[in-house]
Amino acid sequence: MAIARVIVELKPGVLDPQGEAIKNSLHALGYEEVKKVRVGKFITLEVEGNDLKEIEERVKEMADKLLANVVIEKFSVQVEG
Amino acid sequence: MAIARVIVELKPGVLDPQGEAIKNSLHALGYEEVKKVRVGKFITLEVEGNDLKEIEERVKEMADKLLANVVIEKFSVQVEG
Repeated sequence: MAIARVIVELKPGVLDPQGEAIKNSLHALGYEEVKKVRVGKFITLEVEGNDLKEIEERVKEMADKLLANVVIEKFSVQVEG
Repeated sequence: MAIARVIVELKPGVLDPQGEAIKNSLHALGYEEVKKVRVGKFITLEVEGNDLKEIEERVKEMADKLLANVVIEKFSVQVEG
């Protein structure tokens, strides 16, 4: 069994309205020092198998097909046994 | 200027319907080796200031007040200059 983590972020230059909303809320709470906010997600997968290289390839496929919207998002994959 | 990253995850034992839905979709795509999926988010903040210790304390406050729902989520904070 391996643990794979897929980290998904908006590509640079893509507007992040959720991040903007959080920034505005933080300012309203008095945290004026916050200049920029970006929101991303990560997906942790428990995957059967022992071949970490093959698992990484399969998880990259999953990210490409389902987990990330590659038009506006980029992703990275980490696998540990 | 410092970069703070807040990592927010559901507490263990809290149901993750989004993760379940992803798992089911992955199975439907033929990725039967995926046994469990959990979804988390991270928030990257650009923060003015030089005192990393103070920034970390302030960002923990922000996470506690706004960024995480501490009833069902746990968070961790990383700060780099």
